[in-house]
Amino acid sequence: MLKGKVLVAQGGGPTAVINESMVGAVIEARKFHTVERVYGAHHGVRGIVDEEFLDLTQETDHNLELVANTPCSALGSTREKPDDKYCQEVLRVLQAHGIGTFFYIGGNDSSDTLRIVSEKALAAKYDLRCIHIPKTIDNDLAVNDHSPGYPSAARFVACAFSGINLDNRALPGIYVGVVMGRHAGFLTAASALGRKYQDDGPHLIYMPERPFIIDEFVRDVKATYQKYGRCIIAASEGIHDGDHQPIMSKLAKQLERDAHGNIQLSGTGVLADFLCDIIKKNTGVSRIRGDTLGYLQRSFLGCVSDVDSREAREVGEKAVQFAHWGNSDGSVTIHRTGAYSVDYRLSPLNAVAGKTRTMPSKFISKKGNDVTRDFLMYLRPLLGSGMPDTFRLRPNKVPKILNKKRHE
Amino acid sequence: MLKGKVLVAQGGGPTAVINESMVGAVIEARKFHTVERVYGAHHGVRGIVDEEFLDLTQETDHNLELVANTPCSALGSTREKPDDKYCQEVLRVLQAHGIGTFFYIGGNDSSDTLRIVSEKALAAKYDLRCIHIPKTIDNDLAVNDHSPGYPSAARFVACAFSGINLDNRALPGIYVGVVMGRHAGFLTAASALGRKYQDDGPHLIYMPERPFIIDEFVRDVKATYQKYGRCIIAASEGIHDGDHQPIMSKLAKQLERDAHGNIQLSGTGVLADFLCDIIKKNTGVSRIRGDTLGYLQRSFLGCVSDVDSREAREVGEKAVQFAHWGNSDGSVTIHRTGAYSVDYRLSPLNAVAGKTRTMPSKFISKKGNDVTRDFLMYLRPLLGSGMPDTFRLRPNKVPKILNKKRHE
Repeated sequence: MLKGKVLVAQGGGPTAVINESMVGAVIEARKFHTVERVYGAHHGVRGIVDEEFLDLTQETDHNLELVANTPCSALGSTREKPDDKYCQEVLRVLQAHGIGTFFYIGGNDSSDTLRIVSEKALAAKYDLRCIHIPKTIDNDLAVNDHSPGYPSAARFVACAFSGINLDNRALPGIYVGVVMGRHAGFLTAASALGRKYQDDGPHLIYMPERPFIIDEFVRDVKATYQKYGRCIIAASEGIHDGDHQPIMSKLAKQLERDAHGNIQLSGTGVLADFLCDIIKKNTGVSRIRGDTLGYLQRSFLGCVSDVDSREAREVGEKAVQFAHWGNSDGSVTIHRTGAYSVDYRLSPLNAVAGKTRTMPSKFISKKGNDVTRDFLMYLRPLLGSGMPDTFRLRPNKVPKILNKKRHE
Repeated sequence: MLKGKVLVAQGGGPTAVINESMVGAVIEARKFHTVERVYGAHHGVRGIVDEEFLDLTQETDHNLELVANTPCSALGSTREKPDDKYCQEVLRVLQAHGIGTFFYIGGNDSSDTLRIVSEKALAAKYDLRCIHIPKTIDNDLAVNDHSPGYPSAARFVACAFSGINLDNRALPGIYVGVVMGRHAGFLTAASALGRKYQDDGPHLIYMPERPFIIDEFVRDVKATYQKYGRCIIAASEGIHDGDHQPIMSKLAKQLERDAHGNIQLSGTGVLADFLCDIIKKNTGVSRIRGDTLGYLQRSFLGCVSDVDSREAREVGEKAVQFAHWGNSDGSVTIHRTGAYSVDYRLSPLNAVAGKTRTMPSKFISKKGNDVTRDFLMYLRPLLGSGMPDTFRLRPNKVPKILNKKRHE
């Protein structure tokens, strides 16, 4: 049963709907009269260790609803990866404040932190309920059909490539768009949902699940350009060579590494520029452009899937209900039950914590440079209602009089 | 009077609403029973020279309306800059097809092409009416209060920085966003419209109208970071040093030049990466990220200002009306008549052609690293209705128990 003080925190990279989950948990928790206070930690576990708490019991429902509709962790987030000692410190602060339930909204790293804190509480015989609330634009959480945050980021990527396709059709050439995703290609694959007509791009999609072989890439680009007179490429920032070395690792002079030892992939345009250089050197095409979609993918205002908002809200609410009516720690997971409907379960923390799910083979084309129909079927309902559509003029050609040849 | 065959073409970089203008002209022209045919040229002047025409009289109103709502030149565009001989060839084809009116939708280059064609027609005593329909996301057309295409691109930039601000607040650090604009800072300046709260970013805005001095930049960034613990920078791709050399020209090894002799600024991430490197070398800050907003600024699906759509449609309609009821060539220009209302005039082609308008001094702050209130007042109504808003949790702090100091 939920009682005493309840704490909510947000960890890892922000998403467009992460505040829906926070507000879902806060509003649901405030309904139980056994709950004394609902706290929010400032900047995830870092705020716990620093005792930086906000009293969300003193926040209005009205403002909470407005914050729910605002992208990016309103409580602040952190990239810190707590070790054993750090988690011990987290527990000490939770005990000092008499916090009986801890909801942590985050991805695989945040769920792993929660797993350690849960174990420490058990060892210390401190009565603490730990519930993980899923979020990640990477869509790489195990057990889940998909993760809140991914559908909105996917919608952004699909809309971006749909527009890029029109731009590239108006001024033909070769375009490379680099999409977020270190190990999982789900977000890059979403670019395929921007296609409508037969010759629409992206024509080539490279995901980290398959090795990126430069010779094959050049061959693919040349063949596409020959066929359509243009070529749009979606490449994941995490693409790697046959030896599992990220392409990115060959490019940056000084590679920044995060707390997990991973090199920095986002926040730089070097991969797109590198791929453009390869194309420039290997084709005679003059118009070659590269963009890195960057942080807009997870924060852009006004590009949210209504399905994503709703589910993000519900996982927050369900977390509180599982904590109140259930009797175990765990992670709220999303399961598809129809076309399209979902249900939520509480899965063991160690089934999700620290694990990474990647694109199943049935979602990737045989040649490894596109997605399958199965993937389109999987993603389409997640993008939500009101997806923008594109239209073309019909080709009513006027007969030539001077009979001039088309200039190339 | 409008009669015989009418031709519409689109030139230069696409915008989110350029098809509104095309459809506005086509539908309006089809109303006049003296008009025999409405043609569209494929890929601007290139399509004229190649005799690649579509018969838009055989297109349905319904599909035209759907195309109007689709971003990026549906007829295709071109970056070619016609010389005297090229324009002579354009005229020859127009004569062969008996085209009496030529509407060219484009920026300063397209209007300059139209000016030359208009002069050649006069010299050849060929009865041709030439009307320029304005569009450019750069907002750099002379005479006009603003140009169709700019408001939607500005809305995208404002929404992008508003989201970036939330992301940077959740995970503090330094962020550089590079925005399109070679000579005019209007689009970069639009980033300021993403601010709401006192400490919201972008905190620094650098436009090509003022020299970009690296030492001052470093000083500005350090001061901002000290004040807010984070810093967001919006920089125009066209920023240049005290000697009017684009910063970009120092970076690329092989600089690609366009038909106008300009170096390629867009489609590469080098400027953002360069600015991040400077910050990295001159501050002790660990989290520094750079994005180049790229082609999404002019093509992103689902981020259109309704004011922009309406005006883009109207300049197309007005062009046809000026051609029919007036008796001179010219450029349709937009004039602000209230807060907020506009009127359209037909201005002489040489008042607009080949000229570049930049940000007036009253729009740029004294220090040259921000915009003024006057600019905010100027841009706000152009962004249209339904701009997304952002909200924060209120700071109801919980008293500390262990009295731990905030960790930096």
